[in-house]
Amino acid sequence: MTGEQKPSLEVCLSPALLHLYDVKNSIVVIIDVLRATSTICTVLYNGASRVIPVASVAECIEIGNKLNAITAGERDGRIAEGLEHGNSPFEYPREFIENKTLVLTTTNGTKLLHMAKDAIEIITGSFPNISAVCDYLVAQKKPVILGCAAWKDRVNMEDTLFAGAVVSRIREHFSVDCDSALAAEALYQTSAGNIHEVMKQASHYKRLAKYGLEKDIHYCLTPDGANVLPIYRNGELIAAE
Amino acid sequence: MTGEQKPSLEVCLSPALLHLYDVKNSIVVIIDVLRATSTICTVLYNGASRVIPVASVAECIEIGNKLNAITAGERDGRIAEGLEHGNSPFEYPREFIENKTLVLTTTNGTKLLHMAKDAIEIITGSFPNISAVCDYLVAQKKPVILGCAAWKDRVNMEDTLFAGAVVSRIREHFSVDCDSALAAEALYQTSAGNIHEVMKQASHYKRLAKYGLEKDIHYCLTPDGANVLPIYRNGELIAAE
Repeated sequence: MTGEQKPSLEVCLSPALLHLYDVKNSIVVIIDVLRATSTICTVLYNGASRVIPVASVAECIEIGNKLNAITAGERDGRIAEGLEHGNSPFEYPREFIENKTLVLTTTNGTKLLHMAKDAIEIITGSFPNISAVCDYLVAQKKPVILGCAAWKDRVNMEDTLFAGAVVSRIREHFSVDCDSALAAEALYQTSAGNIHEVMKQASHYKRLAKYGLEKDIHYCLTPDGANVLPIYRNGELIAAE
Repeated sequence: MTGEQKPSLEVCLSPALLHLYDVKNSIVVIIDVLRATSTICTVLYNGASRVIPVASVAECIEIGNKLNAITAGERDGRIAEGLEHGNSPFEYPREFIENKTLVLTTTNGTKLLHMAKDAIEIITGSFPNISAVCDYLVAQKKPVILGCAAWKDRVNMEDTLFAGAVVSRIREHFSVDCDSALAAEALYQTSAGNIHEVMKQASHYKRLAKYGLEKDIHYCLTPDGANVLPIYRNGELIAAE
């Protein structure tokens, strides 16, 4: 016992609960596993210079034009009208995305990101970059909020599982006095080794599987396929050095 | 396959998320395990004629005077000023409470109850009456929302565990297409047989244990100690026939 107090590690299961947390004095991890934050780390891992997350399709088109950037986003499982690409991480191989700017509109993740704008730091997390996220959080020694983007404010399985995976990995470095964190951790521990099976019951899995996106889902639930740390600065997500 | 569609079974983890659910067309179960809904079923089980849940201490005193009823409620772990009794189920043995009216003020549970006022039916649930709750829900064949009272809108362990216990018991009679329900069920299944140990980590456990209330907690986490069904009618909770 050194007497040194560990920073807090909390989980916020829905954007509709974020006002209950001390965002201003915390690092916030934006979690939108299927598929926004999985795609964001993949795009940066494959060499994109930046990802600009925006809330609306109109804004995406406008900024895309202004910056001569690639525009992407889906609504109801299809590429939104006026945009060029979708939310699948497989649409962004290195030969396509390297040194480019991606303007990405997603509803749940972008909303949460903008709600967290006063945080000490905002990063994005998902299974493909879980190690980068955990290493960063442990090194910072500051209070952390794992913020699940959820689905239209409803708690979802995949973001909760990811939050639980992070808690489970780094809890010894933090003080975990948050029942959502304990519940997410327990949920993850039950599903560990079996996460794809657990996800098959989840509402979003069913939604995406209907569109034939099992390959996306598998990638998005697998650790460290794109192990880079997206960090939010001046309206852009860039890969941390 | 009969072609008959099963009603939905959903879990709402916090009052701050209730607006996302179709309350009007559902039976809502108010869950405030530590200790409001555990005490409510105990009081009715021990023969009280009714429990009147109110939001404020002032209202509790006023209605208590008007009806010559017993008043109860705590703030910060102590009997609130002006009231006679606390939230412990052990304060209400049959010889004390039989044929009496209890006016009870609790913050989290009462708030949720009033938010759910347009539901088809409102009942209260907790481990001491879990079988009565499950039997009732199965018999009704209507959509169900298990509504956790939470703690100042923050998701808590004990209400989530109870919701999960109910899902686990009655899921075959319902369509469970709600990730909160799946997560709560998985959480409960990991803790089953070990629920007191799991709870020792929870924030509310620590809060109550500080006040020496382990005996209360143990009772509130044990099934069927007061197996009656409190049902909300005209502002009062009465034991269903």
